[in-house]
Amino acid sequence: MGDKLSVVGKSVLRMDAFDKVTGRAKFGIDLKMDDMLYAKLLRSPYPHARVVKIDTTKAESHPGVRATATLNEVPKVVGAIGKLMTEEGRASLYLSDNIVRFIGDPVAAVAAEDEESAEEALSLIEVEYEQLPPVFDPVEAMAENAPKIHEDGNIAFHMFTEFGDIDKGFKEADHTFEDRFVTSKQKHCSMEPFGTCIANYTLDGRLTVYSSSQRPHVIKKYLAGILDIPINKVRIIKPHTGGAFGGRDYLIHGLETMCSFLSRKSARPVRMSFTREEDFTATEARHPFIIEMKAGATKDGILTAMSMKVIMDTGAYAPHAVGVLVNAMGNSVPLYRCPNVTFEGHAVHTNTSLCGAYRGYGNPQINFALESLMDMIAEKLGIDPVELRLKNHRGLGEIDPVIDDEIRSDGMKECLKKGAEKSGWSKRGTRRPATGTKRRGMGMSCLTHHSGGRFTIPDPASAIVMFNSDGSVNLITGAADDGQGNKTVLAQIAAEELGVAFEQVSVSDTDTDVTPFDSGTHASRQTYAGGIAVKNAAAEAKATLLRFASQHLNVEEKRLGLKDGAVYDVKNPSTSIRVSALLTMLQYEDKAIGKQIIGVATGVAPSMPPIFGANFAEVEVDTETGEVRLIKLACAFDVGRAINPALVEVQIIGGEVTGIGYALTEGLVTKEGKVCNPNFTDYRILRTCDVPPIDAIIVESNEPTGAFGAKGLGEATNSGTAAAIANAVYDAVGVRVKELPITQEKVLDGLHSTGR
Amino acid sequence: MGDKLSVVGKSVLRMDAFDKVTGRAKFGIDLKMDDMLYAKLLRSPYPHARVVKIDTTKAESHPGVRATATLNEVPKVVGAIGKLMTEEGRASLYLSDNIVRFIGDPVAAVAAEDEESAEEALSLIEVEYEQLPPVFDPVEAMAENAPKIHEDGNIAFHMFTEFGDIDKGFKEADHTFEDRFVTSKQKHCSMEPFGTCIANYTLDGRLTVYSSSQRPHVIKKYLAGILDIPINKVRIIKPHTGGAFGGRDYLIHGLETMCSFLSRKSARPVRMSFTREEDFTATEARHPFIIEMKAGATKDGILTAMSMKVIMDTGAYAPHAVGVLVNAMGNSVPLYRCPNVTFEGHAVHTNTSLCGAYRGYGNPQINFALESLMDMIAEKLGIDPVELRLKNHRGLGEIDPVIDDEIRSDGMKECLKKGAEKSGWSKRGTRRPATGTKRRGMGMSCLTHHSGGRFTIPDPASAIVMFNSDGSVNLITGAADDGQGNKTVLAQIAAEELGVAFEQVSVSDTDTDVTPFDSGTHASRQTYAGGIAVKNAAAEAKATLLRFASQHLNVEEKRLGLKDGAVYDVKNPSTSIRVSALLTMLQYEDKAIGKQIIGVATGVAPSMPPIFGANFAEVEVDTETGEVRLIKLACAFDVGRAINPALVEVQIIGGEVTGIGYALTEGLVTKEGKVCNPNFTDYRILRTCDVPPIDAIIVESNEPTGAFGAKGLGEATNSGTAAAIANAVYDAVGVRVKELPITQEKVLDGLHSTGR
Repeated sequence: MGDKLSVVGKSVLRMDAFDKVTGRAKFGIDLKMDDMLYAKLLRSPYPHARVVKIDTTKAESHPGVRATATLNEVPKVVGAIGKLMTEEGRASLYLSDNIVRFIGDPVAAVAAEDEESAEEALSLIEVEYEQLPPVFDPVEAMAENAPKIHEDGNIAFHMFTEFGDIDKGFKEADHTFEDRFVTSKQKHCSMEPFGTCIANYTLDGRLTVYSSSQRPHVIKKYLAGILDIPINKVRIIKPHTGGAFGGRDYLIHGLETMCSFLSRKSARPVRMSFTREEDFTATEARHPFIIEMKAGATKDGILTAMSMKVIMDTGAYAPHAVGVLVNAMGNSVPLYRCPNVTFEGHAVHTNTSLCGAYRGYGNPQINFALESLMDMIAEKLGIDPVELRLKNHRGLGEIDPVIDDEIRSDGMKECLKKGAEKSGWSKRGTRRPATGTKRRGMGMSCLTHHSGGRFTIPDPASAIVMFNSDGSVNLITGAADDGQGNKTVLAQIAAEELGVAFEQVSVSDTDTDVTPFDSGTHASRQTYAGGIAVKNAAAEAKATLLRFASQHLNVEEKRLGLKDGAVYDVKNPSTSIRVSALLTMLQYEDKAIGKQIIGVATGVAPSMPPIFGANFAEVEVDTETGEVRLIKLACAFDVGRAINPALVEVQIIGGEVTGIGYALTEGLVTKEGKVCNPNFTDYRILRTCDVPPIDAIIVESNEPTGAFGAKGLGEATNSGTAAAIANAVYDAVGVRVKELPITQEKVLDGLHSTGR
Repeated sequence: MGDKLSVVGKSVLRMDAFDKVTGRAKFGIDLKMDDMLYAKLLRSPYPHARVVKIDTTKAESHPGVRATATLNEVPKVVGAIGKLMTEEGRASLYLSDNIVRFIGDPVAAVAAEDEESAEEALSLIEVEYEQLPPVFDPVEAMAENAPKIHEDGNIAFHMFTEFGDIDKGFKEADHTFEDRFVTSKQKHCSMEPFGTCIANYTLDGRLTVYSSSQRPHVIKKYLAGILDIPINKVRIIKPHTGGAFGGRDYLIHGLETMCSFLSRKSARPVRMSFTREEDFTATEARHPFIIEMKAGATKDGILTAMSMKVIMDTGAYAPHAVGVLVNAMGNSVPLYRCPNVTFEGHAVHTNTSLCGAYRGYGNPQINFALESLMDMIAEKLGIDPVELRLKNHRGLGEIDPVIDDEIRSDGMKECLKKGAEKSGWSKRGTRRPATGTKRRGMGMSCLTHHSGGRFTIPDPASAIVMFNSDGSVNLITGAADDGQGNKTVLAQIAAEELGVAFEQVSVSDTDTDVTPFDSGTHASRQTYAGGIAVKNAAAEAKATLLRFASQHLNVEEKRLGLKDGAVYDVKNPSTSIRVSALLTMLQYEDKAIGKQIIGVATGVAPSMPPIFGANFAEVEVDTETGEVRLIKLACAFDVGRAINPALVEVQIIGGEVTGIGYALTEGLVTKEGKVCNPNFTDYRILRTCDVPPIDAIIVESNEPTGAFGAKGLGEATNSGTAAAIANAVYDAVGVRVKELPITQEKVLDGLHSTGR
């Protein structure tokens, strides 16, 4: 198949490259509108309190102020899309009580002629709070006598699922392994602050919001619901986006809603932009997990049973509580062929800042535990960790028990093989120079991650392909590009299907007024689900083209070929017509036809094919300081087909960098509900100089349901890093750090307790 | 039919009303871009010259200048769309000789950091001209020894068409009537200057042009051709437009082309905005006609033969020479049942400013002659002018000989009846008070005008309808709204077809990247051709909706009704589902479907149905000064169906105002090729206080091929005014003015020569 492709598989330059390197690309934060007001949020200083009274009188008399809003007027809307589906769920979206639940929870907002006036006005708002008892620890919050954060209590969601017979599974085991793992509250750190938008509610009752949301079509529905206007009256325009990583899934707490209300009140466009501190303290972060994991295996290393118990801190609200737990199960249970598994999850409220969607969406947490445990099993049974994975790998032709669908493409073995080769895995025992206090070690991990959410969430994708009369194409897609290069990839798919050059395809901006419905850029879905929609729309346009060509050439459709800009009779290639000539005839010359060829596709992808991956890390640990230095990382991912290999590689590297941060440095530190490191001085993401050489290895397994064999990638790239590094640290110094991040202190503690 | 309609036929508020009255609507002239350069054109001071040398060196060394371009680099592109169809035609588009052909013809352009620098730089460009002999009069230009303006000579186009047998026709006549009529060079005067655009050619090879063109999709093709890039690389975005009237058909001479080249050279966005003087002297105006018209009639007033000969001054170039002549024939020959007609037309070049498309497109010229002649026939034969028209009217069920298609709707008789009633036509002889020097008179005229160009030009229209999950709709159309309210009308058609409220339909902005192909807003076509596309797209969406409803309700499709936001079984109305519930299920709840309902339509309208109209004017002529005062105007138009009666009425009034101007005051005055009245002091359009009471009468004939019975209107509204007024002047004082405009001098001359 590969040799026949001419655009797919090429590392064409991404479409936005010039705009971005020349600084012309406009991001949300760059946007300005005439007559724009500036809005600011007043946030709760308490982790848990009842707002007894808000008096905005003084603020409103500030000469620069044009509108105010309070938490009593504006629904908070912190729910996931599933909540739109039921009356009860919808009611919970419109949570408009007068309780604040974390430090930073919005209480009121002002819109003023300039930022200074807005700031001044904030200080003029008088709020009377009645403090309520807070609870910060999820385990404490589960206790019966714990302060209740929500009316229904602190358990936002509980699930228990059994596959096979767990008791039987443990009975069959020769050995059992059990441990407890804890993960951190990692914060996505995009170049562009998350909290930026402009809302413009005009007098004709239309709301236009410039928002970098990952799901423009879905938040369009949300905002219409909140404002009680028809959906067509809401328009979301997505500017260039400086990274999203889940942090722009749905609405940003207090952002688009407050802006829209202030705009409606003031009849002016209103801009709101959070400070970096607000971003850190009051937008969503990765859920911290406490994981108790137990596995049973035969002496040969065949898994017979696994029990996973998760307590997930979902913070003050629970927009993604269900999704993250389900996804943690969905991307861990299928990884190995173990027939008997239970997964239990509790999502628990605490009076801490928001948790939500972050690349991996439960997988980095559960994978850290699972793949640490696998390393322990390998050591105990004396099996090479790679070998142990291969023994238990659930692969091609087998059924994924969570989504109950067949695995149709499987590059796991190749990922393991290539990752091992590139990392020098076979020599790992032999190349550990003990230089002074420095010790080297290697570790690895496996992972799987579904492409898209076909079986778990509403997941439509749509595309429209319009032929120009010279054979070039305008592609209209609702797929949001968060910076990863979706548009380029989708254009390649369209070009390949239509037999035109990459340059002959343009892709629409993301604007919900004119792009067909797309469920969003999330769940590693756009190359897969978005790609299928684009390919289908292109195929429909091509079929129409061939139908007209068949009439024109008087040759049966099935005998027609399309190549190099011409349609020809495969049995008699001299009978042919240029595509441009045919289209010009249809669009201009034949007045009786006068048609543009347009192809449309809308629907869901057939499956949720698994992305497979393997990470191999080499570290150097200083036994004196506990410092862990990552020497290099080799990581291989089965993406089905790399539509654009260069974009795949940079996505791997970008993801792995946050995976390394998750392993070693990142995590919000809170004290009594207050975030102590809400800035880049104290919250340590990797600097360029911290990034080790990363071998990004592409494996192609040709997913039969995907466009040209492609499946997803995004979330796989940071879901397996932490365990590989943790396992390498163990390999180096024998310290098993079970709580992320793997700080110097924890390594030192481990060294001391093991007496090394 | 009418009583069943709920949105069509209602005067809903136009969609852009709030934006416009609050000053928020952005017109081309309001647009700004970061890093924008300002461009100016250097124009020829000579009517005919060879440019021997252009030296831009000094201009380029001006510190503010970023790019220059000359007529030798940039193709002029002044052709109509038909020219794109042939190699020869295309070559003529790329006319890049070094001849300037009228005073104002662009010679060079500069783009600078500010307007002042651009102005200064213009004066630094050194141009050496070799003057060539000019010719200004079209009759002189037709002489064999006349200076040749183009290589092929001065006849841009010649046509001769015969219907029936003209000789036989004149033989059958009892009387013949013959006269010569001359019309003026009327200039469309839009609120917003015509020559305004921003071109932004970015480093990725894409050109975005903000242009108020009436035909964004067509100029997209043009500009791609000129710049030699694929069509997908060109994007036209149309801002709010302050009037077009044909003046924005295709490209503006020297505007978008020069801007695009300057932007490509400078890698910066470039804005160009003509002064009002440039607009008057160097953009297109209405072709002046010299018409020799001869008619034969029986003594009962039945027309037996008509001969029309037109010499049309097409100015220095001939972008619309063919179209205007063909259209003059197309809207005059079918008006009466006369079986024997010849039409001969010469389009002749002169060294005068451009002529092109202006509302009516040949019809106001030819109608002035035809309907003046009809008045002369009526008088001579002693037949009431209305009666004479009714005797000869070609109506319902008859064949339009020019387009060879049946007339399927016909409100002419009602137009005549209502116009006569409103104007008090029956009392006209009796109410002519001769007060001092003032004399009153009444005159009338008839007209017809085709809706669209289905049989004469490439005329596709397309639309996409996308359902939101609450049943509201986003309509995507390439139909440009020039200010007349297309969008509102198309939204009403979509709403009616889909059974939703007007407020539940939003209409896309005009942006060629995302709107399907539309041939443009011209030829009175959008309500008709655009309306049919919208109705068909909506019908497709509705059919899909009903198919899903049928499956869901388990009721045959043909038994389903759609009403008040629900689909129900007509035989058992309790079996029903809310449209919003069904769509929410499809789009969100049923994960296996996950579809948006999208309807698409693209194609040509079935016909070019005739709009009919009748104008009745009452004037008062001062026999001492020759001044003509229009007392009132009653005008009735058969629009098939008034989708939005208020918009129909204001379109009638707006059109009639320019028709009155055409009759009485307007016209460019040139001397040796120089426009003497290039401003609103000297070029007299009507002021508000000059506008008499206008009775705008809507007649509905229910055109069966149109959307809900609608046909066009636009160009009919100023095509019949001049003759009605001229006939009224004759009625008042016995002076037949045969040359427009009907100035005081001409009336006085007439009074003197008739001895009154």
